Amino acid sequence: MKTDDGRIRVVIEHVTPEIDAGRFPVKRTVGEKVVVEADIFTDGHDEISCVLLYRKEGEPEWFETPMKFLVNDRWQGSFAVTGLGRYEYGIQAWVDRFKTWRQNLDKKMAAGQDVSLDLPVGAQIVQEAALRASGSDAKLLLEWADALKSRELREDRAGLIQDGDPADLMSRYPDKRFAATHGRELRVVVDREKAGFSSWYEMFPRSCADRPGAHGTFRDCEARLPYIAQMGFDVLYLPPIHPIGITNRKGKNNISVYEPDDTGSPWAIGSRLGGHRSIHSELGTLEDFHRFMEKANDHGIEIALDLAFQCTPDHPYVREHPEWFRTRPDGTIQYSENPPKKYEDIFPLDFETENWESLWEELKGVVLFWIEQGVRIFRVDNPHTKPFSFWEWLINEVKKAYPEVLFLAEAFTRPKVMYRLAKLGFTQSYTYFAWRNTSLEISDYFEELTKTEVSEFFRPNLWPNTPDILTEYLQIGGRPAFMSRLVLAATLGANYGIYGPAFELCEARPRGPGEEEYLNSEKYEIRQWDIERPDSLKDFIARLNRIRKQNPALQKDRSLQFHPSENDHLICYSKQTPDRSNIILVVVNLDPHHTHAAWLEVPLSDWGLDPERPYQVHDLLSDARYLWKGSRNYVETNPAVVPAHIFRIRRRVRTERDFDYFM
Amino acid sequence: MKTDDGRIRVVIEHVTPEIDAGRFPVKRTVGEKVVVEADIFTDGHDEISCVLLYRKEGEPEWFETPMKFLVNDRWQGSFAVTGLGRYEYGIQAWVDRFKTWRQNLDKKMAAGQDVSLDLPVGAQIVQEAALRASGSDAKLLLEWADALKSRELREDRAGLIQDGDPADLMSRYPDKRFAATHGRELRVVVDREKAGFSSWYEMFPRSCADRPGAHGTFRDCEARLPYIAQMGFDVLYLPPIHPIGITNRKGKNNISVYEPDDTGSPWAIGSRLGGHRSIHSELGTLEDFHRFMEKANDHGIEIALDLAFQCTPDHPYVREHPEWFRTRPDGTIQYSENPPKKYEDIFPLDFETENWESLWEELKGVVLFWIEQGVRIFRVDNPHTKPFSFWEWLINEVKKAYPEVLFLAEAFTRPKVMYRLAKLGFTQSYTYFAWRNTSLEISDYFEELTKTEVSEFFRPNLWPNTPDILTEYLQIGGRPAFMSRLVLAATLGANYGIYGPAFELCEARPRGPGEEEYLNSEKYEIRQWDIERPDSLKDFIARLNRIRKQNPALQKDRSLQFHPSENDHLICYSKQTPDRSNIILVVVNLDPHHTHAAWLEVPLSDWGLDPERPYQVHDLLSDARYLWKGSRNYVETNPAVVPAHIFRIRRRVRTERDFDYFM
Repeated sequence: MKTDDGRIRVVIEHVTPEIDAGRFPVKRTVGEKVVVEADIFTDGHDEISCVLLYRKEGEPEWFETPMKFLVNDRWQGSFAVTGLGRYEYGIQAWVDRFKTWRQNLDKKMAAGQDVSLDLPVGAQIVQEAALRASGSDAKLLLEWADALKSRELREDRAGLIQDGDPADLMSRYPDKRFAATHGRELRVVVDREKAGFSSWYEMFPRSCADRPGAHGTFRDCEARLPYIAQMGFDVLYLPPIHPIGITNRKGKNNISVYEPDDTGSPWAIGSRLGGHRSIHSELGTLEDFHRFMEKANDHGIEIALDLAFQCTPDHPYVREHPEWFRTRPDGTIQYSENPPKKYEDIFPLDFETENWESLWEELKGVVLFWIEQGVRIFRVDNPHTKPFSFWEWLINEVKKAYPEVLFLAEAFTRPKVMYRLAKLGFTQSYTYFAWRNTSLEISDYFEELTKTEVSEFFRPNLWPNTPDILTEYLQIGGRPAFMSRLVLAATLGANYGIYGPAFELCEARPRGPGEEEYLNSEKYEIRQWDIERPDSLKDFIARLNRIRKQNPALQKDRSLQFHPSENDHLICYSKQTPDRSNIILVVVNLDPHHTHAAWLEVPLSDWGLDPERPYQVHDLLSDARYLWKGSRNYVETNPAVVPAHIFRIRRRVRTERDFDYFM
Repeated sequence: MKTDDGRIRVVIEHVTPEIDAGRFPVKRTVGEKVVVEADIFTDGHDEISCVLLYRKEGEPEWFETPMKFLVNDRWQGSFAVTGLGRYEYGIQAWVDRFKTWRQNLDKKMAAGQDVSLDLPVGAQIVQEAALRASGSDAKLLLEWADALKSRELREDRAGLIQDGDPADLMSRYPDKRFAATHGRELRVVVDREKAGFSSWYEMFPRSCADRPGAHGTFRDCEARLPYIAQMGFDVLYLPPIHPIGITNRKGKNNISVYEPDDTGSPWAIGSRLGGHRSIHSELGTLEDFHRFMEKANDHGIEIALDLAFQCTPDHPYVREHPEWFRTRPDGTIQYSENPPKKYEDIFPLDFETENWESLWEELKGVVLFWIEQGVRIFRVDNPHTKPFSFWEWLINEVKKAYPEVLFLAEAFTRPKVMYRLAKLGFTQSYTYFAWRNTSLEISDYFEELTKTEVSEFFRPNLWPNTPDILTEYLQIGGRPAFMSRLVLAATLGANYGIYGPAFELCEARPRGPGEEEYLNSEKYEIRQWDIERPDSLKDFIARLNRIRKQNPALQKDRSLQFHPSENDHLICYSKQTPDRSNIILVVVNLDPHHTHAAWLEVPLSDWGLDPERPYQVHDLLSDARYLWKGSRNYVETNPAVVPAHIFRIRRRVRTERDFDYFM
């Protein structure tokens, strides 16, 4: 029954961050801090000391950093994660007899009480600490102990224990015999910086040919790289590049009959020419792919591939591993269905197969194959239709060997499923951003993403469009709608992306009324895009990405704060660096059709600004500069010009008092 | 790495109630329900089934009850706890192939699709279930399987699988090979009903003598029992009844010099005549105590004793077990101090002693000693000054043998410490109620106590006064203040208590200005109370306790709901039974000096009342009855008469339409 020592008197509760009782790690990027808090207390009136313990996984030694008391029994400490991989952290706390003794002594002396019996008690405590110390520290402590013990009581002598800061020295040799430890070891996954700050561009390679109707190749894609680089993107995500199946191939606009010249959907993976480790021959060879990756790299662009773990009836797996599929009573393989809908061109992998272990290994092999080709970013198609435990295992296995690999979860599904995937290891996640249109919808959703525990494990990646998502807002709002959604994505999210050239060319025609599918979607056919069209948003996008690169405030999500505007059409928010050296205020007009104006209320004290002095706001989109004073200020935006302001707040405005001769 | 079977596809998250990741049990009383919820989901589109598992601790078999789907991946189930002691509960969930198959079949049939290959798939699933069944169930399932397999496809034949409710039968033989289980076993501590509904009266036995200046005895207390019973209390709590120390005894009003006739504080436990297992000789003998307990029992009153684990310098422990105390450098024992304050009449037990185990055993022995004398309720003095692990161990040990024992924690300390003591096992807890005076203070605090996780482990016991607490509100508010605080305590809390006769006699004189100590406190001297004084609140208290007994809505805390009133001086709230057969609406005037009126807004739909029909409200304090209609109603209270209404809502008012001959 009495398993622990009954003299462990400190308790540690409600540790944050701690996801699902430590079941899942939190996420950081290299160089970031982990701020840990807990309720820590003991019985009675004794003083306690608390330390935060941390180490890189696998290292034998724990580092230790003191926690400081906040309020209401809450303590806080922090450590920085400096390397890729996993860190562990925990908390240790104990009744600190030295601190208790010293505080009581101070109070007694302040009250003029006799402390002649307190000094030898302190001497004893210091002497015991000396035994835990060595070298000059031990010597110093022993000297103090002797002084406390031997000398006669004089007022100034009690002061001796305050000289030379013995508390500092004592805190290095604490008596931890009865220290309490938080019962669960907590973990941090540390990713490279791009996990937290990235600008994605999605593009169908086959639509990159310079001749109408031709099938684009990786060589054609090379020619597109300067265009993408000029816009400022650093991740180029390609839909699957593998052989496309023939059996039950879908025709243009997803009709169930296909013409001989129909190219099929790249997500229908597998033909007699190969499966997930092969390259669709019309795109080029593996060598071409390597060359393309290198060229991209020269432009500062990293290639992200798609992981879509599903097969056409023509996929080699179907012949070689029928045991990985479910068989119907007539001996045929069960195609994908969501009754009454049927997807006869797709055979789902059966994760309940007896042979699940070989299936898992094979899929891991696929990922490792592309890692060996140099790929380090994967966008995962529909992860919510494969088991959670599979992803947790896969991502862990891969990141153990390649901690720099990033996985983006494309799980447009229910919120708890989405969050579970993030918790179990996905580096970034698609979000509901595309469907959050009003001021309240946006602020509610982003408060949830950035101000709750969700921010510890879920890194939002905001996409105003994808090949599957052409929102009603974009369909009806014209070019201003594309601009405002772009500004929202690029400033609300440190990670964002667009599907182009459809986006920059403001492609807005749906397949049918009430649908979110594109008319003549690139998913089912090759498109030719006039990327040099004068109404293209490419220069606006380039400007936005430059603003993102130059303003560290926009490279993190956690400082996001919404501010009241008196007009619901104008949403207003800010982000800032912890040292306040970079403060960005964004105002977006959500109405693509009309000019709107409003008085904003901005948080001067959070920004460290004097309410009595004017400050400059510099609109990084228009380059206009305004002088503001106080927290209430007027803004106006005309969607026909630019539907947003991105202000950089500049702290100082010079006045005559700043000149030497003024005095 | 792959330790679990990778085919376990369901996940279980965010289980409630679950206190600190299952570290602590939740609390219930016999007959109550435990409603368990969790987020439960799987990948893809398959159907899942979830069951709640529970058992009395030590029983070999788990009971199982299905959970039902609520919304947003949330599931709910419940079970009733019928016996004293500990229960365990957990959750199991799995992908349900039968449910999935059947739902898909329904959809396909509704769409007129061919299901000829689906029927044998279902047959296979049913056949496997038959192997898990036996007897007639197995036979029935096999017949179904055969029918599904063998017959030709006809529209009406597919309907066969809906006859005879096979889903019901199938749900009894699920395929749990890949069932997920919530990783932590959760516990419930089940107490007797008095843990959840009790009315306490605190009284100093030594003040019960019928002659001025005489020391009251247990015999005198016997004579007081009818008085207490008539007021309707069912717990009589006595301050410590043990021998009182002489050394450094405190005088009247807690002065440091004492007169020969000063009786000392009962919390200064221990003299040469004995310690925690002895009875102060002036009160009587152990036999007298037994007799007193029996008499109390005859009046429906249970005696609660005080556990104050501290000693005077005269306590036998000091001689017999000096190792349980801390010694000062001069060889004397360290008295209690909170510098610069000294409590030289008290030696604290040193829970950091090397001999902590024998100390713990001895203190447990003290509790068991009084249990053997028949005591089953303990009020624990300052538990927050002894280690948490000690209390957890002690309460567990005692309740293992005596699950009917109740412990009330008197921890007027910081909120997290207070809650920790409740979590680790205290049955009931004192609260901050005495200092919550305004409408907002009261509603905020009680929302926290009844509407958050706190309600799972913390049972508030509300005291408007104690021998240590004479609030400013009572000091200045006169008799109406005592009445309103009494109504609040007795209706906000299913558990409440008063310290009398000071309370019913509206004793309001503080020792000094700004102090909460009573003048001439009974803690330090014997008082003589004129309990028959005409202005006594005893009849009002009796009425209140009768209302509590007759109205089950007031016997639980969880249904508490506050309602808006247009006047902050009038606080308005209701409680109801789950079946709505008993609904109580309380309105209290918080201003002891003035009449106040307001329009209230009451929740008709929560009460199941028709907004179009009048209903009766019956004031159980004044016996007045009113007809109300709709949710907005007028109330007025005059503190000079009664500063509160306790309305029982009576659903029906008869109209002419209720008479047979109306039609």
